[in-house]
Amino acid sequence: MKSIIIASTSTIHGSGYLEYLLEPLKIHFKNADTILFVPYARPGGISHDDYTSTAAKAFAKIGKSVRGLHEFDDAEAAVKNAEGIFVGGGNTFVLVDQLYKNNALLALKEAVIKGTPYLGTSAGSNICGLTMNTTNDMPIVYPPSFKTLGLVPFNINPHYLDPIEGSTHMGETRETRIKEFHIYNSPPVIGLREGSWIAVEGNTLRLQGTLEARIFEYNKTPYEVAPNSDLTFLK
Amino acid sequence: MKSIIIASTSTIHGSGYLEYLLEPLKIHFKNADTILFVPYARPGGISHDDYTSTAAKAFAKIGKSVRGLHEFDDAEAAVKNAEGIFVGGGNTFVLVDQLYKNNALLALKEAVIKGTPYLGTSAGSNICGLTMNTTNDMPIVYPPSFKTLGLVPFNINPHYLDPIEGSTHMGETRETRIKEFHIYNSPPVIGLREGSWIAVEGNTLRLQGTLEARIFEYNKTPYEVAPNSDLTFLK
Repeated sequence: MKSIIIASTSTIHGSGYLEYLLEPLKIHFKNADTILFVPYARPGGISHDDYTSTAAKAFAKIGKSVRGLHEFDDAEAAVKNAEGIFVGGGNTFVLVDQLYKNNALLALKEAVIKGTPYLGTSAGSNICGLTMNTTNDMPIVYPPSFKTLGLVPFNINPHYLDPIEGSTHMGETRETRIKEFHIYNSPPVIGLREGSWIAVEGNTLRLQGTLEARIFEYNKTPYEVAPNSDLTFLK
Repeated sequence: MKSIIIASTSTIHGSGYLEYLLEPLKIHFKNADTILFVPYARPGGISHDDYTSTAAKAFAKIGKSVRGLHEFDDAEAAVKNAEGIFVGGGNTFVLVDQLYKNNALLALKEAVIKGTPYLGTSAGSNICGLTMNTTNDMPIVYPPSFKTLGLVPFNINPHYLDPIEGSTHMGETRETRIKEFHIYNSPPVIGLREGSWIAVEGNTLRLQGTLEARIFEYNKTPYEVAPNSDLTFLK
């Protein structure tokens, strides 16, 4: 049975890394002693080792140890044998490129479908969707494909930002960007605000946290869903 | 002799489409009666026809007519025969994808090198750089490559935004994104603020407009250059 937490961000303003998620993570990873951490997205370009240390410090607070996927010679086998998996944020293009190059993408998908509990934040959440076409990240590398895990039947837009009232900046708002996505693609997109996450348990999907999420469906006016909403209807 | 205007944006706040650029455009396109407009980037998903009308209305003010590249059966020939070229903004992924699919990218490069005056705004400026790796756009389609025109020996970041002081949002700032670009790539990047443009005349490159631009060189602290600076030193 799938068991996934798809979080908008690892960190909310004024709080430590993963701090706002530690209570749900205790339950989510209750049967795992060691978490396999995928550091490929390298936020700010930090090294795999440094990024893994950051994750390890957070998980130590709930009594879990952490191993970085980069420490294993065989990434595919490491994923297959993991008790729990956390894919951290950073740059989605770099993450997806590395997942393809290390043959880890299909292994991740199979492990999660078999029931290995998964946590994604930001880029690690983006890849839970059908494609990475709705990432906010800069395309600093060219991955072999934009196709991702497809663990949910829609796309994720993490760090969702509402249009800034009175802004004089002429760059596109997030809403405009997602509208443009729907000129060329039909899957729904969930704009997940920072502090929100989607909890997937088997076939049930539920919005968690205290904030509404914004839903963009093809050929429909975008709308809000309330915290704790069942999202199973989205296809 | 190359003659290029690489503008951060088509429109500055509180002003009409291309309005702030019309005076320099009169000189830039002085030998052209008809401008070939490339509407491929489709901002907000508008049609090629509608986008071309927008460009035509602006150019009518300086006595030029406009034809859309989509109106021609042979895009390559249309580019080759153009008196002046304008590539409008929108989504850079869509633009680059369409340029490749219509065999127009190489034709554009050759025409500009032979001296056809070129105007790019936003996405149309991004493609003047070596690659589109520093676009701000959402990757809503997967182009065959991120390689672009290479008319200047660096990359462009249009609509450059300074970090917002006191922001509580945890998504990456523009500066962080460009820093991440330099983990994997070495060319310089120019952060062009809205209202700025680069004027290329032969081998001379000059920053135009009233604002400073931010320069990101590999392994250097980012710095500002003043309006009217010569940018020829950047390689």
